Amino acid sequence: MKHMFEEGLQRREANYVPLTPIDFIVRAAEVYGARPAVVHGAIRRNWRETYERTRRLASALRQAGIERGDTVAALLPNIPPMIEAHFGVPMAGAVLNTLNTRLDVSSLLFMLRHGGAKALIVDTEYSELAHRAALEFPELRVISVADAMPADADKFIRAIDYEAFLQTGDPEFAWSSPDDEWDAIALNYTSGTTGDPKGVVYHHRGAYLNALSNILEWDMPKHAVYLWTLPLFHCNGWCFPWTVAARAGVNVCLRKFDAKTVFELIRREGITHYCGAPIVQSALANAPAEWREGIAHRVSTMVAGAAPAPAVIAKMKEIGFDLTHVYGLTETYGPAAVCARQDEWETLDDIARAEMNARQGVRYHLQAAVTVLDPDTLAPVPDDGETLGEIMFRGNICMKGYLKNERATEATFRGGWFHTGDLGVRMPDGYIRIRDRSKDIIISGGENISSIEVEDALYRHPAVSVAAVVAMADPKWGEVPCAFVELKEGAQVSADEIIAHCRQFLAGYKLPKAVRFGELPKTSTGKIQKFELRARIKAEETE
Amino acid sequence: MKHMFEEGLQRREANYVPLTPIDFIVRAAEVYGARPAVVHGAIRRNWRETYERTRRLASALRQAGIERGDTVAALLPNIPPMIEAHFGVPMAGAVLNTLNTRLDVSSLLFMLRHGGAKALIVDTEYSELAHRAALEFPELRVISVADAMPADADKFIRAIDYEAFLQTGDPEFAWSSPDDEWDAIALNYTSGTTGDPKGVVYHHRGAYLNALSNILEWDMPKHAVYLWTLPLFHCNGWCFPWTVAARAGVNVCLRKFDAKTVFELIRREGITHYCGAPIVQSALANAPAEWREGIAHRVSTMVAGAAPAPAVIAKMKEIGFDLTHVYGLTETYGPAAVCARQDEWETLDDIARAEMNARQGVRYHLQAAVTVLDPDTLAPVPDDGETLGEIMFRGNICMKGYLKNERATEATFRGGWFHTGDLGVRMPDGYIRIRDRSKDIIISGGENISSIEVEDALYRHPAVSVAAVVAMADPKWGEVPCAFVELKEGAQVSADEIIAHCRQFLAGYKLPKAVRFGELPKTSTGKIQKFELRARIKAEETE
Repeated sequence: MKHMFEEGLQRREANYVPLTPIDFIVRAAEVYGARPAVVHGAIRRNWRETYERTRRLASALRQAGIERGDTVAALLPNIPPMIEAHFGVPMAGAVLNTLNTRLDVSSLLFMLRHGGAKALIVDTEYSELAHRAALEFPELRVISVADAMPADADKFIRAIDYEAFLQTGDPEFAWSSPDDEWDAIALNYTSGTTGDPKGVVYHHRGAYLNALSNILEWDMPKHAVYLWTLPLFHCNGWCFPWTVAARAGVNVCLRKFDAKTVFELIRREGITHYCGAPIVQSALANAPAEWREGIAHRVSTMVAGAAPAPAVIAKMKEIGFDLTHVYGLTETYGPAAVCARQDEWETLDDIARAEMNARQGVRYHLQAAVTVLDPDTLAPVPDDGETLGEIMFRGNICMKGYLKNERATEATFRGGWFHTGDLGVRMPDGYIRIRDRSKDIIISGGENISSIEVEDALYRHPAVSVAAVVAMADPKWGEVPCAFVELKEGAQVSADEIIAHCRQFLAGYKLPKAVRFGELPKTSTGKIQKFELRARIKAEETE
Repeated sequence: MKHMFEEGLQRREANYVPLTPIDFIVRAAEVYGARPAVVHGAIRRNWRETYERTRRLASALRQAGIERGDTVAALLPNIPPMIEAHFGVPMAGAVLNTLNTRLDVSSLLFMLRHGGAKALIVDTEYSELAHRAALEFPELRVISVADAMPADADKFIRAIDYEAFLQTGDPEFAWSSPDDEWDAIALNYTSGTTGDPKGVVYHHRGAYLNALSNILEWDMPKHAVYLWTLPLFHCNGWCFPWTVAARAGVNVCLRKFDAKTVFELIRREGITHYCGAPIVQSALANAPAEWREGIAHRVSTMVAGAAPAPAVIAKMKEIGFDLTHVYGLTETYGPAAVCARQDEWETLDDIARAEMNARQGVRYHLQAAVTVLDPDTLAPVPDDGETLGEIMFRGNICMKGYLKNERATEATFRGGWFHTGDLGVRMPDGYIRIRDRSKDIIISGGENISSIEVEDALYRHPAVSVAAVVAMADPKWGEVPCAFVELKEGAQVSADEIIAHCRQFLAGYKLPKAVRFGELPKTSTGKIQKFELRARIKAEETE
């Protein structure tokens, strides 16, 4: 039965507008139009100009036959057209599929095919893909961006230059908002270590709310100056193109990461915020002190994925970089959990504080929940820091699902939770801590060993630069941990010394039974490829 | 036709959760449970305790027979139970109807009747209403809050003490979220100067988004310390109970405004933010310097309604109070526009800068639009600062509509816009400026005269404390402006001097033709009652 608060009080055009992060650029242009929006070398554009360019892009795409619900792919470094695509493509009603610039061409072709891309915006550096894609998909519109190098005419067949393409568009184009905030805004392929990549579909509502959560966690002020160290192709730069617009901030572009350049930009442009993988953070923490000269202001940084080593955390603190540790997956628009700091941690010693900061933490501000549940019964695990369960999310910062893969979508959303596939525990303070990927856990004599816990111990050794631990078959225990270690330049240490070091932190059954030295195989985004390490062990065993 | 981004990608429990500001207290309790939430004299409660009390309240209300969609009224000063009601009532699925403590009993009885209140939470100070309401509505549950004074047993018949009522509730109560973010969360009666008050219904979605907009405009950091100078009954304290929870900040309560107490609290509690009507701001700006001693930190303040006089703005700046001018109506959850400051205004002189800051400005961050349209054709007026139109809003920060008044709802939302009834202009920089309420405009010899413009001129006279201008019948011009002026204590000035002063700023036809001195009639919220002034003129004319 309807009650009186429902009678005649329905949604109307005046009081219900779909949430979309596109609106953030509209307000930035309206209210702060003359303020800087994008900086890239000699290029400096304000919000009015940037908004105009995105309207041109949307208009040109529509004129080129792109329709609502079509896919537009982009293979671009962190340059202005990539930021523009985050607005112009959805303003055309289309879905933006950013592609990982470090992937091989056949993976990229798979994505273009699976995502049904109708257009591809591609930097002239990636001529091989441009060529192969143009040949393979005769209907594909190719738009080439000449940023650092001219287009190779032999390779860029059927391509129109991005700037010329914008000129065909109307700067006053009356784009229309999404019909529904549940409409797709972006498509991001997961870099699965096995099997075909899955197409993760984002909706406008989630992108909007995650962009705001970024502001809330960072207390990010208006007109913040954001440096693009994090690849924009990676979960839409964790939604920061939209966050920066919502703050009418400055996007400082960076075609290629280089620690010295980063410090120069921090000094010259007054960078206040950036995000980066642990590898980016340690490159900055370990840079020569003279590169930092003249930088007196505080810089806020977010790090996702594995927590940086305590030494890196301590160093960041020393140089005045304020580090926030976040956690998430492609399916949660990047980070949707944060290790929210507590004042009382300041009284801890460096190691203990780093331990606290290294956890995956609590739900992001506008996410409904993150917790650890028994993957079968979905009952919460106790807050004992010991009982393993699966980390699960619920809320508006979860994807729509996997494109054209209803089975995987159903499975991952089973029981009203998004199943991350990461194993973790809940600490007595309610913070979650990742223990491992389900498939990375080592089962030794019936006991679970977290590969991450062993890696944490390895990382505490001053000579260790990168470490990974995987299961190795063992006749007695079933599996035992095998450590792969990359040493710091010039460092020397033996396997026995490494194991002795680990004994300080780990129970005997968790100690690595073997230590292999040498460079570790990594994915294009810097993740260690454990499947490759397992293959090496397998090869040894069968030799 | 469905496209591939719609197939199998529907909303699910895991990825779609209704937006509700209740969630802000849940996260504050989860993540910052031990941090201070509410301060009131000797009472200090943290977020965990406050959340527990709101769950008890929700549970007790359900046990007392309150059901989803029922109305719970509250007649309370700015004390902890009022903050708790903003969470506990909607957690019971009910709608919170806060009542203006300055209204007469018969208006309050009208609201209880029209809103169909099932329960009333009432401070023991308001024994008259408690008594009359209990007699008139035999089914009404009366919950009395003994804060500053004990309950008068003769008046508080059938009442249960609030603290005893909480004890009947379950601190672990499993409250449920709204079924839909469009569900009603609050009911606020407009203090119409004529006719019956209208019941403005707020939805969870709008309250959530306005609470976030407050953070965005103020760059309000986590754990901000907020002083309750603004009545919580006024547009739900402009949504700040929810904003403070979203920031895990501190609510410093204030039963009654008093400038000296405010400075003491700023000093002792480290207040960082407060909101207040112009009258509150000038009381603080004009306070003796010694009251401010020992306050070194910056304080951010928002002022709504009429802009403060330039002298007040300058004084606030001098004492280190950072003033933001906002604009809105009950129907837009309080402010939904802000006079966003621009860096270049800093180069202007005090008067010119105050003029810029006095405007109503631009849309609030998460509101879709505010503009000035021709009320008939809904065409935008030119950005010339001259052409009058009606100020209109669109977006999620607009009410559901008026309770049990579909005709008024339809009229106010006509053509896809919320019609404010305020007349204004658009300036060349896109900022809007209010000229008048439609009914306050003075039409003299066919020319429109903005009463606000004349009032602005009056306020510039150093002897003027409060001023109001209304139309007075005139045989030649139809109408002419008549000024009512309240002088500062000890000030003396003649009508001729006032008119001569105005001549510096106003065209001849806009000058007040008469000036009346004396105290002005005001509503309980400090608004000047122009209808009362018109009645006085009418009485003079018919004498």
